[in-house]
Amino acid sequence: MQRLFAIIGDPVKQARSPDVFNALAAERGVDAIMLSLHVGAEDFAGVLDGLSGVRNFEGAVVTIPHKRAAFLQCGSHGRAAEAAGVANVVRKTGDGLHGDLFDGFGMVNALRRAGVEPDGRSTLVVGAGGAGVAVAFALAEAGAAPIQVRDRDTDRCRQLVHQLTQSGYPACEFADDFQGLRLVVNCTPLGLDPADPLPVAPERLDPDCVVADAVMAGRATRLTAAASARGHAVVPGEEMLAGQMPAIWSFFGLPGETDISAAKR
Amino acid sequence: MQRLFAIIGDPVKQARSPDVFNALAAERGVDAIMLSLHVGAEDFAGVLDGLSGVRNFEGAVVTIPHKRAAFLQCGSHGRAAEAAGVANVVRKTGDGLHGDLFDGFGMVNALRRAGVEPDGRSTLVVGAGGAGVAVAFALAEAGAAPIQVRDRDTDRCRQLVHQLTQSGYPACEFADDFQGLRLVVNCTPLGLDPADPLPVAPERLDPDCVVADAVMAGRATRLTAAASARGHAVVPGEEMLAGQMPAIWSFFGLPGETDISAAKR
Repeated sequence: MQRLFAIIGDPVKQARSPDVFNALAAERGVDAIMLSLHVGAEDFAGVLDGLSGVRNFEGAVVTIPHKRAAFLQCGSHGRAAEAAGVANVVRKTGDGLHGDLFDGFGMVNALRRAGVEPDGRSTLVVGAGGAGVAVAFALAEAGAAPIQVRDRDTDRCRQLVHQLTQSGYPACEFADDFQGLRLVVNCTPLGLDPADPLPVAPERLDPDCVVADAVMAGRATRLTAAASARGHAVVPGEEMLAGQMPAIWSFFGLPGETDISAAKR
Repeated sequence: MQRLFAIIGDPVKQARSPDVFNALAAERGVDAIMLSLHVGAEDFAGVLDGLSGVRNFEGAVVTIPHKRAAFLQCGSHGRAAEAAGVANVVRKTGDGLHGDLFDGFGMVNALRRAGVEPDGRSTLVVGAGGAGVAVAFALAEAGAAPIQVRDRDTDRCRQLVHQLTQSGYPACEFADDFQGLRLVVNCTPLGLDPADPLPVAPERLDPDCVVADAVMAGRATRLTAAASARGHAVVPGEEMLAGQMPAIWSFFGLPGETDISAAKR
C-alpha cells in the first residue's frame, strides 16, 4: 500500500517539497508520495482530523498559515516545536499526532548549501514569531554571533532575546545599526503578498551582507529581489524547506540515510 | 495546482482505478492524480468531510464498504445512485457533494470488452443490494432478458423485480432453474473473504454460461476460480471498475473524450 504524505498550506502551489520528497522516494525505491494540499485556515483542523482517519496517510509538512494550528492539534512535540509553539511537520502515532519544527535546521542547511557558513557571522533575525524562534536558535547553535532580534511586538522580541541568552548565546535586541551585519534573515510573513512593505531596507546593508528569507512565495520576494538587484547574495524561503527534507524524511520514519546532499538536486 | 482524486475503500490495496486514471491523466496531459485511501467504516464520514476542505481535492471513487455512507453524505444524486440508494463516485460542487453510481455501466462495459454482449442474454443477478440494483438496471437497459434476481432477503429481491418490471423490463424472481442461463453476475459481497461460501454453485451452470463477479478482491474469488476451473468465461470485479473509469473521468469534469478504449490497457 502506497504511504501517503502531504504538504498543507495556503498558498501551497509554489511548494517544492513534493518534488524533493518524491525524487527521494523514487531514488530509494520507497512506495511513498507527497501531495500538495491547498487548505484554508478555516478548514485546517478538519482536514488534518480527516486525514488522520486514512490508514495509509502517515504525516504532513505544514506551512503558512497553519503552523500554530498544527502545533495545537498535536498531542506531543519535539524540542524545537515546544520552544517555538509552532510545528511545521506532523506525523501520526498510535496515540494522536506528534509535531516538530525543522525550519531552523532547514535555514542553516540552506545557508551552508549556498556557501554561507553561519559560524561567527553577525546576524539580524527579523521577526520573533515561530519561524524567528526556530531560525534564531538554529543559527545560534550553528555559531552565528552576535544575534540581534527585531520585532514590532517588543514583548516577544525581548522574550526571544531572553530565551537565547538564557541558553548561553550572545543575543540582543536590534540597535538599528546595520554596520557590520553579515546576515539578515526575514522571519516575518512580509513578502508573501507582493504589496507587503519590506521587512528591512536593503540600502542600509553592507555589500557583503547575505539576505535570507523564510517566506515561500514561489517567486522572488520584494526583499530578495531588491537585495539581488543591489548585489547581495540571497537565500530564498524555498531553500529553507528543501534544506530540511532529508531530516523530515527520517522524521516520517522512512528508510534510508538522511544524506543532505540527496536533496540538493 | 495538481487536481486530487481518490479511491476510498477497505480493503483498497487491490484497486486498479488509480493506475487506469493516472494513465489517462498522463496520456491527456492533465495535472491530476488519483490515490488509494485505506479508510475504515468508522472513519469514512470524517475523511470525506476533511477531504472536502482541501481546495484542490475534487472527487472520489468509493468502494466497499462505503457506498451507502457515500450516498448519505451527498446532497444530490444522479439517477442510478438515487435508484440504488448507494453511490460509488462523489464530486465536490459549490454546494456540498454530488454522488452517482457507475457500477452497472461498468459491468456492461466490462462484459462487452470481454466479448460478452448482454443483449438477449438470459441472466441471473445474485444480490439485490446497491450493486445488484445498479447491475440489473444496466443489464436490462443493454437488452439482457429475461433477468432473474435472487437475494436471501426476499423483500428486497421482490422490490428489485418490481422496479424492473415497472420500468418495462422482463424480470422475475429466480426459480432455482439454472437451465438456459447464459450469464450469472454475483452482486453480493460473498467472495471478498476467501472463506465466504459460494454465491452460486458453478456445477449447476450450463458450460456456455458466463460468470461475472462484482466483488473486487484483488485476486480470483472462489466463484471466479471455480467457474474458470470448469471452463466458464469469467469477468472479475476489477474489470467492472476499470470499465467505468472513462465515464468517471467525465463525471469529475476532467477534459477529453470518454473513449472507452482508452481504459482498455
